[in-house]
Amino acid sequence: MGNTLSPAELRGAARCGEHTGNTSGLAPGFVQCNIVILPAAFAQNFLLFCQNNPKPCPLLAVSEAGHALLPSLGEIDIRSDVPAYHVFRHGKLVEEITDIGHLWQDDLVTFALGCSFSFEEALLADGLEIRNISQNSNVPMYRSNIDCTAAGPFRGKMVVSMRPFIASHAIRAIQVCTRFPAVHGAPVHLGDPGHIGIADLNTPDYGDAVTVAPNEVPLFWACGVTPQLALAQAGLPFAITHSPGCMLVTDLRSSQLAVL
Amino acid sequence: MGNTLSPAELRGAARCGEHTGNTSGLAPGFVQCNIVILPAAFAQNFLLFCQNNPKPCPLLAVSEAGHALLPSLGEIDIRSDVPAYHVFRHGKLVEEITDIGHLWQDDLVTFALGCSFSFEEALLADGLEIRNISQNSNVPMYRSNIDCTAAGPFRGKMVVSMRPFIASHAIRAIQVCTRFPAVHGAPVHLGDPGHIGIADLNTPDYGDAVTVAPNEVPLFWACGVTPQLALAQAGLPFAITHSPGCMLVTDLRSSQLAVL
Repeated sequence: MGNTLSPAELRGAARCGEHTGNTSGLAPGFVQCNIVILPAAFAQNFLLFCQNNPKPCPLLAVSEAGHALLPSLGEIDIRSDVPAYHVFRHGKLVEEITDIGHLWQDDLVTFALGCSFSFEEALLADGLEIRNISQNSNVPMYRSNIDCTAAGPFRGKMVVSMRPFIASHAIRAIQVCTRFPAVHGAPVHLGDPGHIGIADLNTPDYGDAVTVAPNEVPLFWACGVTPQLALAQAGLPFAITHSPGCMLVTDLRSSQLAVL
Repeated sequence: MGNTLSPAELRGAARCGEHTGNTSGLAPGFVQCNIVILPAAFAQNFLLFCQNNPKPCPLLAVSEAGHALLPSLGEIDIRSDVPAYHVFRHGKLVEEITDIGHLWQDDLVTFALGCSFSFEEALLADGLEIRNISQNSNVPMYRSNIDCTAAGPFRGKMVVSMRPFIASHAIRAIQVCTRFPAVHGAPVHLGDPGHIGIADLNTPDYGDAVTVAPNEVPLFWACGVTPQLALAQAGLPFAITHSPGCMLVTDLRSSQLAVL
């Protein structure tokens, strides 16, 4: 896909099955979302889990039960507008599909959560180098020893993503991301990875390792994989998420999420 | 002095020679200033030095030549309202006095610069511990290897002050200080002191060493001693400053300096 398509055009391409892949770098300037879809019986506790853990789970929109639309994010049909979905049954991934119309139920609730693509865009716009982007790899992610605040069956450790910077750029990155609490906001940790239970930066739990130079400080952000992990561990009979990297592209501009 | 006096009352006590000491902790909530007084022939270059180096030299007010008043900071007579002054001749400190009326000249220009007391107050108000305050000592300061941008005879290395925090508090401290660019603003460095030419945190060039715990990160701020050093190195025939710690107390509220 070219990166000149509008969010609505991109969703149209996803809707008709023409675009079924990664959305990284597409529709620059527009907010992309992590998606979680759950039966209403579990939605109240998942909503509370997001409320309790806003840094890894920044909620941008929640649908009414059975409603497949997210009007605050654009003209969206959540049954078709995500390029690819993961379907979970009893906590296990059972299939990856590009449309969930045939699985839709009257009690399904959709949660749209902020994604690190938005703050990475703000960092790049400020002239900072993002290592995973310059190395053309996935951002390294680690299961930290930071406990999330549990809600019903949803619990677990916070997953963090890591990006290294020289000190002055680390300070600037904290300032830039502070403006965007709805997309994970400021880092949760910096410096020694051991202090949050990470034994070795070179062996991430998810994504790819990146180079960290001797004069660089690692910055750690709360990561959207955290709710995915909490969801998997809860072992719900039925749940649907986006396929990693294949996000819902919305009509919200990233700058609209800036608190300042 | 009690800390319940208003800024005007404190200045009155300094004016009549009743208060001649440190102003740390006095008139809480109000801005205190570093003071530099120079003959007009050097004022243009000193103004440019401040403009070129805003983090160590955040200018809050500049007087007209020969005018002893700083109306934007309060009803102030700069010849008497600072508790104690240092007088320099040919770059050497020649006396400490509590009134400079007899030294006043028609060509003297006063510079009032922001001071770290203001951002320390903001950090304390946010619930953060400041090590030099809890250890009841002067903040440790170091001559870094960061060059200031020179202006005429004014040049030199940036002096930085250091305060240690655990990582999450370091991130919060950066956020809090970012709101106050007029009082040094966000730190200029964090982590390894060697990267800015500091060999040993335990031997500060000015002030006292403080404890840094193994799980803490040192944060380094641009320091108001920088212009003092540039001034001394310039070897001007005549200059006056406040005596360290004995600041001009203004009617400006610290919160009025917050950019957000």
